[in-house]
Amino acid sequence: MSLIVALDPPEGVEGVRWCISLIDRLDNVPAGFKVGLPLIVREGVKGLREVVSVMNTELVIADLKLADIGYVMSLVTRAVAEAGVNTVIAHAFTGTEGALEELLRVCNELGIKLVLVAFMSHLGAAKVMKKVFMDLLDVVKEINAWGAVLPATIPEVVREGRRYLGTAFKILSPGVGAQGAEPGDALCAGADYEIIGRLITRAENPLEATFNVIRKQGERVRACRGT
Amino acid sequence: MSLIVALDPPEGVEGVRWCISLIDRLDNVPAGFKVGLPLIVREGVKGLREVVSVMNTELVIADLKLADIGYVMSLVTRAVAEAGVNTVIAHAFTGTEGALEELLRVCNELGIKLVLVAFMSHLGAAKVMKKVFMDLLDVVKEINAWGAVLPATIPEVVREGRRYLGTAFKILSPGVGAQGAEPGDALCAGADYEIIGRLITRAENPLEATFNVIRKQGERVRACRGT
Repeated sequence: MSLIVALDPPEGVEGVRWCISLIDRLDNVPAGFKVGLPLIVREGVKGLREVVSVMNTELVIADLKLADIGYVMSLVTRAVAEAGVNTVIAHAFTGTEGALEELLRVCNELGIKLVLVAFMSHLGAAKVMKKVFMDLLDVVKEINAWGAVLPATIPEVVREGRRYLGTAFKILSPGVGAQGAEPGDALCAGADYEIIGRLITRAENPLEATFNVIRKQGERVRACRGT
Repeated sequence: MSLIVALDPPEGVEGVRWCISLIDRLDNVPAGFKVGLPLIVREGVKGLREVVSVMNTELVIADLKLADIGYVMSLVTRAVAEAGVNTVIAHAFTGTEGALEELLRVCNELGIKLVLVAFMSHLGAAKVMKKVFMDLLDVVKEINAWGAVLPATIPEVVREGRRYLGTAFKILSPGVGAQGAEPGDALCAGADYEIIGRLITRAENPLEATFNVIRKQGERVRACRGT
């Protein structure tokens, strides 16, 4: 199972209830759920705990995109761990000493998987992140993170990431659906998981949309691997 | 007035009450207060609003260190704006198109000052951020942010930032006190504000500690300017 569903409530809805209803309808079919910073900031640990308590998937991800000194990132991670999260997303660009090194220690202590953003898909990423892409992958290796985030919308970046990281790291790829990539594109380029939001969460029948995505992922992967 | 007080509750205390008590004792003497992501994630917008409601300073800063696509950063900014925050800290690292450009638009719409992190003081910052320091300053200029965060612990970086940015941008410098810089060091190097946490918030008499800092800042600035 290579599908993670991003739960990003539309503006104006009651976020916790919206998430719980979706999780309920998706029947724990995905490999994981990802909750973003907007919901967490709105609702705090209390609201996050309510949402997480109804999940029963392998991955329960807080997409915090942490980018601070180690002490601050650790405090935030402890807070979301209390809510039941088992995977945290931080940026690779803050580096190891004084930052991710300390975060990793706290993640290990709490049994949290650490995933690092090594590239992003928006146009502005070309200005700074592109220049230091290999350094960001180096940080993923040095820290021995559980995984890296690489955009499905730029399959060449996923391919290069896989080549450089080898098979000891998971690759999680957002950008499928509303942002333009097709289900299976990132998997074919070497990703382990595709993160999909609106294509599923805004569908009239989210569970049916989930099965459609899984079927398309399978077809695409069989085609690209020539099996 | 060049002092911003960072309100970072120690672990284990009830954060909202701790902040309110400190704000009360500091009698709105500082130019601003800065609240960090750990408190915001723990307490959500509701807790943040309680804390902010007792502040009456020029600057009310949410130190979110945002580093995401524009849409996500905008949602988080809307949430903290509802709580009464008037200044938001994001990273310059994500670049303009698809990221900070959109955040700036939302900040302008909401009357929020945008401050961008252009360098950090921990050792790991030397790995990636140092390589792209000039690019990060370029992003601050391109976006026409209200200000930039540059570390008081590396006065040369503050000096270079001031030289490159000119006088149209505010420079906010954390790292004074517990992290090693002396009050006034960053001001001498060209900063507009020094951000101070523990030196004031953990003092037996925080208001007295505040006046001590302000006196030291004045002495140091007079000495370095030779007046």
